[in-house]
Amino acid sequence: MTERQGGGEAGSSAPPAPLSYRAVAGTWRFLVGRPLRSSETQKERITPVQGLPALSLDALTSVAYGPEAILVVLAAAGAGVLHLIFPITVAIVALLVILVISYRQVIDAYPTGGGAYAVSRDNFGANVSQLAAASLIVDYTLTVAVSISAGVQQLVSSFPSVSSETVPVCLGVLAVITVLNLRGLGDSARAFLLPTMVFIVGLLAIILVGLVHPFDPHVRQPGHVAVATHSLEALSVLLVLKAFAAGCSALTGVEAIANGVPLFRDPAVVRAKRTEMLLGGILGAMLLGLAGLDLKFHISPRSGQTVLSQIMGAAVGRHWAYYIVSLSITLVLALAANTSFGGLPVLASLLARDHYVPHVFALRGDRQVFSNGIWVLALMSAALLVAVQGNTESLIPMFAIGVFIGFTLAQGGMVVHWWRHRPARWRRRAAVNGLGAVVTAVSTVIFLVTKFTGGAWVVVVAVPSFIFLFRRIEAYYTRAGRALGLGTIPPKPKAEPDRTLVVVPVANVSRLTAHAIEEALALSEEVVAVTVRHASDDHTADSLFGAPGDISDQWAQWDPGVPLEVLSTEYASVVDPIVEFIDARRCDGLEIVVLIPVVVPGRIRYRVLHNHLDLVLSAALRHRNDVVVARVPLGLEDLPTHQADGGPRSSRKSR
Amino acid sequence: MTERQGGGEAGSSAPPAPLSYRAVAGTWRFLVGRPLRSSETQKERITPVQGLPALSLDALTSVAYGPEAILVVLAAAGAGVLHLIFPITVAIVALLVILVISYRQVIDAYPTGGGAYAVSRDNFGANVSQLAAASLIVDYTLTVAVSISAGVQQLVSSFPSVSSETVPVCLGVLAVITVLNLRGLGDSARAFLLPTMVFIVGLLAIILVGLVHPFDPHVRQPGHVAVATHSLEALSVLLVLKAFAAGCSALTGVEAIANGVPLFRDPAVVRAKRTEMLLGGILGAMLLGLAGLDLKFHISPRSGQTVLSQIMGAAVGRHWAYYIVSLSITLVLALAANTSFGGLPVLASLLARDHYVPHVFALRGDRQVFSNGIWVLALMSAALLVAVQGNTESLIPMFAIGVFIGFTLAQGGMVVHWWRHRPARWRRRAAVNGLGAVVTAVSTVIFLVTKFTGGAWVVVVAVPSFIFLFRRIEAYYTRAGRALGLGTIPPKPKAEPDRTLVVVPVANVSRLTAHAIEEALALSEEVVAVTVRHASDDHTADSLFGAPGDISDQWAQWDPGVPLEVLSTEYASVVDPIVEFIDARRCDGLEIVVLIPVVVPGRIRYRVLHNHLDLVLSAALRHRNDVVVARVPLGLEDLPTHQADGGPRSSRKSR
Repeated sequence: MTERQGGGEAGSSAPPAPLSYRAVAGTWRFLVGRPLRSSETQKERITPVQGLPALSLDALTSVAYGPEAILVVLAAAGAGVLHLIFPITVAIVALLVILVISYRQVIDAYPTGGGAYAVSRDNFGANVSQLAAASLIVDYTLTVAVSISAGVQQLVSSFPSVSSETVPVCLGVLAVITVLNLRGLGDSARAFLLPTMVFIVGLLAIILVGLVHPFDPHVRQPGHVAVATHSLEALSVLLVLKAFAAGCSALTGVEAIANGVPLFRDPAVVRAKRTEMLLGGILGAMLLGLAGLDLKFHISPRSGQTVLSQIMGAAVGRHWAYYIVSLSITLVLALAANTSFGGLPVLASLLARDHYVPHVFALRGDRQVFSNGIWVLALMSAALLVAVQGNTESLIPMFAIGVFIGFTLAQGGMVVHWWRHRPARWRRRAAVNGLGAVVTAVSTVIFLVTKFTGGAWVVVVAVPSFIFLFRRIEAYYTRAGRALGLGTIPPKPKAEPDRTLVVVPVANVSRLTAHAIEEALALSEEVVAVTVRHASDDHTADSLFGAPGDISDQWAQWDPGVPLEVLSTEYASVVDPIVEFIDARRCDGLEIVVLIPVVVPGRIRYRVLHNHLDLVLSAALRHRNDVVVARVPLGLEDLPTHQADGGPRSSRKSR
Repeated sequence: MTERQGGGEAGSSAPPAPLSYRAVAGTWRFLVGRPLRSSETQKERITPVQGLPALSLDALTSVAYGPEAILVVLAAAGAGVLHLIFPITVAIVALLVILVISYRQVIDAYPTGGGAYAVSRDNFGANVSQLAAASLIVDYTLTVAVSISAGVQQLVSSFPSVSSETVPVCLGVLAVITVLNLRGLGDSARAFLLPTMVFIVGLLAIILVGLVHPFDPHVRQPGHVAVATHSLEALSVLLVLKAFAAGCSALTGVEAIANGVPLFRDPAVVRAKRTEMLLGGILGAMLLGLAGLDLKFHISPRSGQTVLSQIMGAAVGRHWAYYIVSLSITLVLALAANTSFGGLPVLASLLARDHYVPHVFALRGDRQVFSNGIWVLALMSAALLVAVQGNTESLIPMFAIGVFIGFTLAQGGMVVHWWRHRPARWRRRAAVNGLGAVVTAVSTVIFLVTKFTGGAWVVVVAVPSFIFLFRRIEAYYTRAGRALGLGTIPPKPKAEPDRTLVVVPVANVSRLTAHAIEEALALSEEVVAVTVRHASDDHTADSLFGAPGDISDQWAQWDPGVPLEVLSTEYASVVDPIVEFIDARRCDGLEIVVLIPVVVPGRIRYRVLHNHLDLVLSAALRHRNDVVVARVPLGLEDLPTHQADGGPRSSRKSR
């Protein structure tokens, strides 16, 4: 047993691939970047400030729709109760504080990431963790779709001419984000830092100006007031709870940092906790500030004009500061999708290690990111965007349910965690988590009840479907692992190897045939060439491509020291006689290797002109577990146009 | 060298394939029928009466649009010149007679089929024959599209509720015809015999009744007269020629029988010539009869009501006989597409033998038909139907140009043929063919000029494109053939075979690994297992699926007598280290075989869960012509759920 160190540029010593392949590969390499060593990825990891754009945009951009959701619910009870937004926001911020404290504890307890999934797997076992994972997958996908569509709709408000192209623009934005993520998260995080800072600093400044000394508090707001003139609904505990639950959509994304701990630079735990604090502070300040301004400016929901836009307009007037921050909101809403691209691929890799999803999701791509998870997330959210035609309104009812299921499970799991480990002050910690679990559970139930027909049923269908899939996949891997004897040491191979018969299907006498026969002789002394002759005297496609005359005569003339079996058939298929021939030999107790000669033309487009036998024969033998199928390729690109020596050796490297 | 006779049901002795494959294959087998021996296809060949539905429907159904096309052209000069339809039809029938005589001579001279292509190849050489072939391909495709859309539009006239589903109905009809043809032409021909007979006998009877004693000559016709009240165009030689050329669309399909001679029962030439006569007689009688009735009933073109329908209504009234024959016209129009399915695949097989199209087109399918040609024709005409949304009007301007180019070339070629061979009365024969060539050439030019902007430009683009493709493909095959040394006898393989190194990429110690190592030892004494270890300590997807612990330790414990190379890499790719390892060994002058262990799960849907290494490694090595890539499969279906002996032997047949 020896260790080898694979060094240098990967694959650099391989012979050049055909041109067309190189062109495609080169374009892709340009988009995604060269392969990275794992040691190079350290610099791709992120700092707390970078962590805000990379993992927290989902949460931060919630201010664009969270406060409005509260006001819309309250408005059903008339303008007189709109002032309740302030106590409700206080309650939400209190919940935010609980969540931030809880998730800082989660980061400490689970530094390898995974958030709700890891916590509930650890404390509740497999079944509950599958619920958490399914909920998170649904919510990650929805976050991408909601953020991109909201961002594009904001763009469309500025440039109405784009409105007919909403879906293509959404998909274009998604494609850009996908490619940036395939390049590695750090690149993406750095790319998104500037607009995030403009958004955070600008909006906080606007809130401050508004609270202290608004420039233009009586600015004329476009749109129409959407408050019921008569109370449609009596003020009730249920209404307040509904408003609270609706406002909780502002809390989606708070968990993303805990899921993405391994993405941070070392010491990752410290940096992740710092980011979580930063997020909690900024989001809480924004929510409270906006609620205060709601009261100060007597804001009520309007059609065609968001609450956030009203507040900003009232605070600084509809001037340059308003437009700059509005545009940054557009941009960060679109980029909030990046939060999910930082989260779902890591979650999928954890699920793959538990055998709940195909193992490919645990594979890193050339850029050391979990590229398969990135691709799947891109495809699922693209499907969602196309299905709702890029309309955010259709997505909102499905949104936030998944993440609140995750909150509940994570915090419930932490209660169990404290109960089991009982560190100092475990009772108080468990109480904080328990309170959070109860409140988020209640919110989840209210979400489901009030939004069911509006779209929440999709989540109710999707989450169990994912769980079903996880279980089927795990059951299969368990069966397959048992069948493969994993974990046991197999018996030693027989000392005396079997006899091996190499069967070479040939259609003509050519350099390709000679090359294949030579390779076959290197594998075994027992080689037999087979060819199929049709009783109807029709040629096969491959035999067409031969010299005129009978292959038997040419074979005799060539006399390569290998017998040629001419299989006669009345059927059209050339595969069946070869398979029958193999089956007949199989009974003799031989190892059978079928060595299919294939031409590798210089350009992709020429491939349709060759190797028809390879296609059908490989397909026919693919499911046979008693035959080894080998392809012996002969490249045509570097062959001389005018054949000089004619020998099959010229296509091989000198030895 | 021995001869073996492949007998019995094809592939019956192979082990059963996994369930899902069998279900798909079984459904397809049910649709298309069991494989046929070539000896069984004799009964699939056709008689002259069967030849009418199989090869002549295109020509016969032309009566549904040919006379109308003449009247539409004449109507531009006012109602006063409509009587010119009779002399023009006489001229067309005279041309029909010339064509029938000419093509009977073609059948005699070229009994192997091929029509315009074979004749022009023989007499004008490769370049002109490529023009003929391209024209025929365009026209075959147009015939399918025009016939199906016309048939469906007729159906839509009867059932207006179907009108919104025109394209799906067109594609459905196309699918049915395609499957019938994949079953073999004879099946199709028999299936179409009854409606063809109803159409021929019914329409001839209606014409007879109309000429002798119409039931209801003053029937009220729906639709509006579409004759110019003022002459839009003066009566001129050009107008008459245009009307003549338009009416010549009734002659499309006359050549199909000559192209399909090999489809007839022996004696094929006699039967084909008889069919050609039968076609000429029936078509001529119909055209003349309809022209006579046009005069008798003073028919003029109407919107929403075809000329043929007007004549039938006037002859027998709009009663049961009218509806039965109308429906049979609908049906045979749709089935006229079958003419092309009898022609294009045979033409494509001839082109494949001349290396103008990929060789696959010369391959017969299980039912002994040229199934690849059938598939391509179906796809091209489906694309055409979708492009024009099933609207016949959009297709008519492209129609008939291709076939008239073919007529001209075939008859011109026959002139050369007579000139060269000079049999008895060769001057008169050459004169007949020469006259036909000139008239069809003039018609072609008039078609191109008058229809160019209406759609004929598509043909002007498509025909040279096909010719370009033919030449590129032929040039490639010539280069490839030279590079492969076809026609030369290669040198004998070396007497002393090379040393062979078998490289087995492994990810764990399991039955699969043991199976692969055993197969490798059967191929060579030099076997090395390689595994990739990531510096970042990440698992690969396949190694995930292994026992916990280090593979090196397990390997040492197992000790299969084969060294394990642990390749350490900092990159994510597991392929590059293996390729580098192979490249390093290649310099030692070894034959290198990469033996990839693959799991063959029992159901297709489980395939995504396995063999990720196989996918990427096969793709990476596919273009290498210095490495033989072999897959050693291990079926999982018949393995015991609870492992009994755990040995790799249990998955092999006893020997």
